Amino acid sequence: MKNRIKEILSWYKSENPGTLRNLYQILNTGRLGGTGKMVILPVDQGFEHGPARSFAPNPPGYDPSYHASLAVKAKLNAHAAPLGSMEILAPEYSGQIPLILKANNHDSMDMGADPITALTASVDDALRLGCAAIGFTIYPGSSNFKQMYEEVREMALEAKMAGLAVVVWSYPRGSSLSKEGETAVDIVAYAAQIAAQLGAHIIKVKPPSGRIELEAAKTIYDKYNIPIGTLTDRVRHVIQSAFNGKRIVIFSGGPAKGKKEVLEEISQINEGGGFGSIIGRNSFQRPEEDALAFLKEILDVYSK
Amino acid sequence: MKNRIKEILSWYKSENPGTLRNLYQILNTGRLGGTGKMVILPVDQGFEHGPARSFAPNPPGYDPSYHASLAVKAKLNAHAAPLGSMEILAPEYSGQIPLILKANNHDSMDMGADPITALTASVDDALRLGCAAIGFTIYPGSSNFKQMYEEVREMALEAKMAGLAVVVWSYPRGSSLSKEGETAVDIVAYAAQIAAQLGAHIIKVKPPSGRIELEAAKTIYDKYNIPIGTLTDRVRHVIQSAFNGKRIVIFSGGPAKGKKEVLEEISQINEGGGFGSIIGRNSFQRPEEDALAFLKEILDVYSK
Amino acid sequence: MKNRIKEILSWYKSENPGTLRNLYQILNTGRLGGTGKMVILPVDQGFEHGPARSFAPNPPGYDPSYHASLAVKAKLNAHAAPLGSMEILAPEYSGQIPLILKANNHDSMDMGADPITALTASVDDALRLGCAAIGFTIYPGSSNFKQMYEEVREMALEAKMAGLAVVVWSYPRGSSLSKEGETAVDIVAYAAQIAAQLGAHIIKVKPPSGRIELEAAKTIYDKYNIPIGTLTDRVRHVIQSAFNGKRIVIFSGGPAKGKKEVLEEISQINEGGGFGSIIGRNSFQRPEEDALAFLKEILDVYSK
Amino acid sequence: MKNRIKEILSWYKSENPGTLRNLYQILNTGRLGGTGKMVILPVDQGFEHGPARSFAPNPPGYDPSYHASLAVKAKLNAHAAPLGSMEILAPEYSGQIPLILKANNHDSMDMGADPITALTASVDDALRLGCAAIGFTIYPGSSNFKQMYEEVREMALEAKMAGLAVVVWSYPRGSSLSKEGETAVDIVAYAAQIAAQLGAHIIKVKPPSGRIELEAAKTIYDKYNIPIGTLTDRVRHVIQSAFNGKRIVIFSGGPAKGKKEVLEEISQINEGGGFGSIIGRNSFQRPEEDALAFLKEILDVYSK
Amino acid sequence: MKNRIKEILSWYKSENPGTLRNLYQILNTGRLGGTGKMVILPVDQGFEHGPARSFAPNPPGYDPSYHASLAVKAKLNAHAAPLGSMEILAPEYSGQIPLILKANNHDSMDMGADPITALTASVDDALRLGCAAIGFTIYPGSSNFKQMYEEVREMALEAKMAGLAVVVWSYPRGSSLSKEGETAVDIVAYAAQIAAQLGAHIIKVKPPSGRIELEAAKTIYDKYNIPIGTLTDRVRHVIQSAFNGKRIVIFSGGPAKGKKEVLEEISQINEGGGFGSIIGRNSFQRPEEDALAFLKEILDVYSK
Repeated sequence: MKNRIKEILSWYKSENPGTLRNLYQILNTGRLGGTGKMVILPVDQGFEHGPARSFAPNPPGYDPSYHASLAVKAKLNAHAAPLGSMEILAPEYSGQIPLILKANNHDSMDMGADPITALTASVDDALRLGCAAIGFTIYPGSSNFKQMYEEVREMALEAKMAGLAVVVWSYPRGSSLSKEGETAVDIVAYAAQIAAQLGAHIIKVKPPSGRIELEAAKTIYDKYNIPIGTLTDRVRHVIQSAFNGKRIVIFSGGPAKGKKEVLEEISQINEGGGFGSIIGRNSFQRPEEDALAFLKEILDVYSK
Repeated sequence: MKNRIKEILSWYKSENPGTLRNLYQILNTGRLGGTGKMVILPVDQGFEHGPARSFAPNPPGYDPSYHASLAVKAKLNAHAAPLGSMEILAPEYSGQIPLILKANNHDSMDMGADPITALTASVDDALRLGCAAIGFTIYPGSSNFKQMYEEVREMALEAKMAGLAVVVWSYPRGSSLSKEGETAVDIVAYAAQIAAQLGAHIIKVKPPSGRIELEAAKTIYDKYNIPIGTLTDRVRHVIQSAFNGKRIVIFSGGPAKGKKEVLEEISQINEGGGFGSIIGRNSFQRPEEDALAFLKEILDVYSK
Repeated sequence: MKNRIKEILSWYKSENPGTLRNLYQILNTGRLGGTGKMVILPVDQGFEHGPARSFAPNPPGYDPSYHASLAVKAKLNAHAAPLGSMEILAPEYSGQIPLILKANNHDSMDMGADPITALTASVDDALRLGCAAIGFTIYPGSSNFKQMYEEVREMALEAKMAGLAVVVWSYPRGSSLSKEGETAVDIVAYAAQIAAQLGAHIIKVKPPSGRIELEAAKTIYDKYNIPIGTLTDRVRHVIQSAFNGKRIVIFSGGPAKGKKEVLEEISQINEGGGFGSIIGRNSFQRPEEDALAFLKEILDVYSK
Repeated sequence: MKNRIKEILSWYKSENPGTLRNLYQILNTGRLGGTGKMVILPVDQGFEHGPARSFAPNPPGYDPSYHASLAVKAKLNAHAAPLGSMEILAPEYSGQIPLILKANNHDSMDMGADPITALTASVDDALRLGCAAIGFTIYPGSSNFKQMYEEVREMALEAKMAGLAVVVWSYPRGSSLSKEGETAVDIVAYAAQIAAQLGAHIIKVKPPSGRIELEAAKTIYDKYNIPIGTLTDRVRHVIQSAFNGKRIVIFSGGPAKGKKEVLEEISQINEGGGFGSIIGRNSFQRPEEDALAFLKEILDVYSK
Repeated sequence: MKNRIKEILSWYKSENPGTLRNLYQILNTGRLGGTGKMVILPVDQGFEHGPARSFAPNPPGYDPSYHASLAVKAKLNAHAAPLGSMEILAPEYSGQIPLILKANNHDSMDMGADPITALTASVDDALRLGCAAIGFTIYPGSSNFKQMYEEVREMALEAKMAGLAVVVWSYPRGSSLSKEGETAVDIVAYAAQIAAQLGAHIIKVKPPSGRIELEAAKTIYDKYNIPIGTLTDRVRHVIQSAFNGKRIVIFSGGPAKGKKEVLEEISQINEGGGFGSIIGRNSFQRPEEDALAFLKEILDVYSK
């Protein structure tokens, strides 16, 4: 085992061998295998945003198998998808790449100010489909926080008992936050902390902006001169906020944008100690060849 | 096994043999058996709209056995009914035609803007009554989405564990949608995607209109020039939205109307790659002989 | 077995022998035994309306045993009561007359527009107390419909698994209905249909008035000229609405009134194909001798 | 066994021997043992009203053991307390006097118009602590009635299965009642009936006033000339309302007041057929010697 | 066993040996071991207030292991932390110091007037992580009281069955209390009583102020001249309110402040019979050496 992988796994000593095996596999799959960095392809946009909005830019993506194939060809670390997609692709791909079953979802017909996820898969589903991990979205800042935290906590324990790894997408949103506050650096750091405390092994957050949302936090950031000037600074602070770097925190790419912009962002994430990226729309919405080339460039950044 | 049936079943490889057997039986029953097309007779209108509104036009329909008998005589693929009806008809018909137990319902005394279904049957009921599948209605767009999605997900898993197939009626409705939006093409496609992601094997939606409901979707349909000019186009898009055609999607007929109109609609559904139809009021509200003749014409379309 | 009883039991072929035995016993007890007609004495008014309002007119009725004794002496088919009453009377009467445990209740201190029942007994209670059936009230038209339908459905399945029969009191009430609408003929027919679909073996409704409540229904009653001019007509329509007569539907007497009026009503119910009556306040609020004489007259009507 | 005890136990024939044993022990403990009368010391005021309000008048009462000791010394029938108190006192007193575990509570920081109790102990707690019975408060007239009735019903069944007795404090309160209505005679009688129907073995209500709360009840009390002029009359009516005297109904003393007043009240309760009293603040808020002397006088009344 | 420890454990005789062992270990660990006093280091502020607000003043604290190490070096009695932190530190520290798993949490993005905690860990987690106890926060005075009390009660029983000790943080807060009322002496005493009644073995409250919040309580404090003039008086009253001193009650330090102020407060708590302190921000937000020196001074006070 590479030293960096040994080090990372040493933070998860309270987990049983089944979970360690699945974390090991995610960390050792694909071109970044053994580096301690990871890039994951998540595709739940069909559920979250609707099929045409997600797949019309590159129609082969209507087929769930396309994404698993793309993740394998691009030599990524893992692929995440909701239940129905997983039922299609798992029989062929469960042995080829670690699969993360996205176990809750929210569709964009609901426009309530305080979002809540619906449980759409279970640990039993993850086991029968040969997945390595189970994944959840939580919305800290929503008035529905109690229900979501508890659903995650309960299923996370069940997953750990069954030897699965647990991935949490922590996306602050709700009536107690401003729209810009959702990516404010204090809020993103807080979101990483909450996911870590709920027992997540891998945490996904959005790249933090320079804004500070909560009054009580502002005083502290000023008083202690916490560096948040560059994205690299802010990534470093978020990583620190997740147990001083002892939890795997990766960053999303957000809506499709210029390649250069994405690569620059990833470069800063890497420099700040980020463990990697979740690249969804920025890959699967491009034609396959283009996507593969672009993912190669992203892996190049993390391989430096 | 016919090639087309082999192909269809290949999309459901993650299911256990019990479920595959029941899907196989639905696909191989009646005159369309072996073609990959299906016509199903669903009769839950007694619960959903009230008995007189449903059965006064053809009074033998007050007796649940009438419908099972009609479905058998018309050589359809399956018959769907709620618990009480099923308890009447199953002892005689469970061996003659695959039965789909409708496991949730909503009566029309409730006029709330955000509808919710009540669970009215269970997997245990489906098993003791010899059914091949269990069916659910969901209302995407209702503020009660979480509860309905979770009830379906939980019972769908239970059904799969017990070797049953799962059918979902996905009918967008609720305060976040306009009345016309319920059948808008973006919404119907989204509804098909959600049902597929919840793990449905067979999905039933309404024929989509040319309207686009969600602002965010409109931009995409324009930008990518998604063809939605004819019903055939729209059906093709809906089928694509359900895993690029890898899920069985069938279409409802809606309220009783002229035969010609129905046949024209079905012809376009067939041409667009629709897997078939659910024909309720358009069959059981006509006198038996008339209904049988009309269903024959419908099967003719799908046999072409 | 009498032919009529054979015929009735043939509608319940999906039930297991335990449930058939209990239905058989209800149909074969008392003076109407073997005729397919039944009169049941239900006494839950202590809970529903309060003790003095229920029993002051005939004080021996404060003792639950009085009612079981009255039902036996009057040669009725069964006696229904809530948990506490049943705990008093069952040790002496469970062998003498089929007992129906009323498993949910609503007290009249609650005056909400959308009533909801509280579960006040369970299938385990019914079994330990030697009951033949379990009974529930539902309020179709209440915004609380989902909870009540689901509680009934779940306990009905449990009851059937344990070999009990299921009785449903279907009383439309709630903010979506007018006061007069609660007994409108379309609503009573709809209530019978819903109870039947929820899996009830015996359904109790109120005698329907000539009113039609729902706009959508009115059109149909007019168009198809459904006869609803007399109570006999309306009873026939309600019976038809419960699976074309394949479910036992009985009618309540309502508040105590003149004997002649009651007998006239029952005569019309009988003529319309009603399976019998539930006679509560009209019997137990009269002195015992008077009640016995009156019940005899009622049985005379159903024996014709 | 004394004849009166035999008679009382004959009303509980549907219970299993474990429960009968515990009822027997409560009826046969202390100076009133064998008379069919009982006085119980309940101390949940620490939780319900706060510690200082409850125990400052007699500070030894801050220690839960004090109360158990007082009940034993005063030769009462049983002692009731919440979980924490019971955990302190049970190891020493469970063999000396029957203990009633108060399993739900409500604190007076909550001032909502429609009170609801929180479950604060379970049947498993009662069993591990050697209790003879489990006790609950319900608030008929609260809009939260469904939840409370169902919690009591479910735990009552569990208690009976485990051989425990069930005590219900039935205290009407909520937005559908006036403040004075909480002790109106029709409401107290109704409260006794509801507790009895929920399966309580021992029912505790407040002494009823001469007021009648519900319009529908007033008509009946007038028409049938139900005697409610004196407390004795009213107690007799309440006893009658609990299955014509076939359930043990005892009365609370309410806030501490003059001894003479209490004794006069108890004398009337006894004369009206009341089965006894629950004496809380009127005993434990007096110095021990004083309390013992006073309780002796109360037992004298019930011994007559 | 020291006499004082024997005495303390004698108050918990109803607990099984597993729980007694864990209480014994907490009472016998560190420099205060055997004295009956205890100081605990709780660190859940990362979840409750956010990471930067909690750990920026002393950045090593971002790492959960830092706190366990600090508690061991300072010779404290126990360390409390939420799930994620515990998963990091338990493998190394579970044998060195008793661990208390904080099983519910509330983040400060939620600003509702009636706070509610989310369950964030379970008894199964505490067991697999080798903890000695499980801890909960309740907010008496919140309209959500029922849910919190019941969650604590249910998990407390489960914990006792599994041989764990139970710690309750009882922090009055909610729309029925004024801001100052949260630390009013009547409210803090009431909070201690409620935690004790819910079955807590160790209770944590805030140091009470001289204010009296509830009208009904004010009358009593005046009438009985309860001494509340000094913090020592008030601590004595709070200890009395938790079963006359038969439950371990410890006090929090609140926000970081001057050392002298803290030591003075602790001195008064000790004099009033307080069992010890929970020292969070006042220790972990200082540099390690400083914190160790300060904790030494605190232990000095309790060793007197």
